[in-house]
Amino acid sequence: MKLSRYKHDSDVSYALGATLVYELLKTHPELIRRVFLRKGTKPGDDLTTLLENLKARHIEIIETSKAFNVLDAKDSCLLIAEFQKPTEQLSISPDAPHLVLVNPSDAGNLGTIMRSAAAFGFQNIAIVTPAVDYLNPKTIRASMGAVFHLNIQEFASFDAYYISQPTRTLYAFMLDETAVKLPDLHPTGQNFALIFGNEASGLPKSLVAIAQPVFIPQSSNVDSLNLSVATSIALYQFRQK
Amino acid sequence: MKLSRYKHDSDVSYALGATLVYELLKTHPELIRRVFLRKGTKPGDDLTTLLENLKARHIEIIETSKAFNVLDAKDSCLLIAEFQKPTEQLSISPDAPHLVLVNPSDAGNLGTIMRSAAAFGFQNIAIVTPAVDYLNPKTIRASMGAVFHLNIQEFASFDAYYISQPTRTLYAFMLDETAVKLPDLHPTGQNFALIFGNEASGLPKSLVAIAQPVFIPQSSNVDSLNLSVATSIALYQFRQK
Repeated sequence: MKLSRYKHDSDVSYALGATLVYELLKTHPELIRRVFLRKGTKPGDDLTTLLENLKARHIEIIETSKAFNVLDAKDSCLLIAEFQKPTEQLSISPDAPHLVLVNPSDAGNLGTIMRSAAAFGFQNIAIVTPAVDYLNPKTIRASMGAVFHLNIQEFASFDAYYISQPTRTLYAFMLDETAVKLPDLHPTGQNFALIFGNEASGLPKSLVAIAQPVFIPQSSNVDSLNLSVATSIALYQFRQK
Repeated sequence: MKLSRYKHDSDVSYALGATLVYELLKTHPELIRRVFLRKGTKPGDDLTTLLENLKARHIEIIETSKAFNVLDAKDSCLLIAEFQKPTEQLSISPDAPHLVLVNPSDAGNLGTIMRSAAAFGFQNIAIVTPAVDYLNPKTIRASMGAVFHLNIQEFASFDAYYISQPTRTLYAFMLDETAVKLPDLHPTGQNFALIFGNEASGLPKSLVAIAQPVFIPQSSNVDSLNLSVATSIALYQFRQK
């Protein structure tokens, strides 16, 4: 059994734990290559059902300790699915709003943002690299499986995203009190993109040439909101409009 | 120099890094007992100003390596303030809204929530124990210093909080699609409390006897939102109303 630690340039990744394997099976069964079951596991009812569903799809189940030693540093899960990384393209439909994350650097933040995006119906996410790897098993776990419900495409620069979306209205979230306040924004239609910058450096000021700057009203007692919080508030607020 | 690792029952805690020391000095200078400066540090302009402000308040500055070995596992900061833990009481003013966190268990989440509470003007937070320690240096760091702008009181049970606030309107955030939806809530005045449960177990159903259940509309594609995200969305939304 050939198996090595996850790497960014690998063509497979791993869903750790029964909950993530279940989400993956529900959304992308065709991507699953094989599933590892921790040696000596006595499956309960839920796990038995899941294993039967995997078998019904002719997915190989391998009882082993090795995969867990290699892949599961926390030594806590019973099931791991190895899956082919998808290659996805953003929907260019004007009915599909976009979320654009420029250089997100924290796996926990990105996982939490994907969870909020799935919760508020933003299926399409553009990630401008360099960025944390959204298919790293840690990020997948932080997303609680939400990543499998989304359509995510990486772009090598913001310009590469921009030229692919010439007619989309862009909203750039910035710490600029002179910008339009989020509650006062009244977008029409869904042909827009919400753009957020890196945790530490935010977005470049130059973006205002092509995007409407937006500010989430907040006290001067704090430097800023956490990135996943700011993004989730915007996703929530746009979903209400 | 007597110094040991932080413990929950210690009467002092630590602000790690110049930014947190600055926030502490700005908000609670009387609590600072002494400040440690990493041995061999060549202070830049900002750090020099901060050190002068500390000296002007007759706060002892000790150049040392030991405190950093004991307290700063990441080995990255230049300044640490040791401070007396405050004993705070919630404001009972009807003009001061409350946030009530029942058994929060994750230091990162609690830090992020404190940051959002300071950002959206919720100065008063009740924490029902058992809970993660809001004065642990890790939680303080996750709050980016927001903890120093807040008024936080621990309660041994939800009932202990409840009997202290007999006239307050209570909103209990639950994963219950039959509850009132957050955007449809129209509170009057500020004499209310927003209540959130533990990351894994949420709030007990029995709370509906005394609290208005509230639901943040979300897709069934996710089990729930991250706790710090759900709390921050509610704080934001109530601040707009």
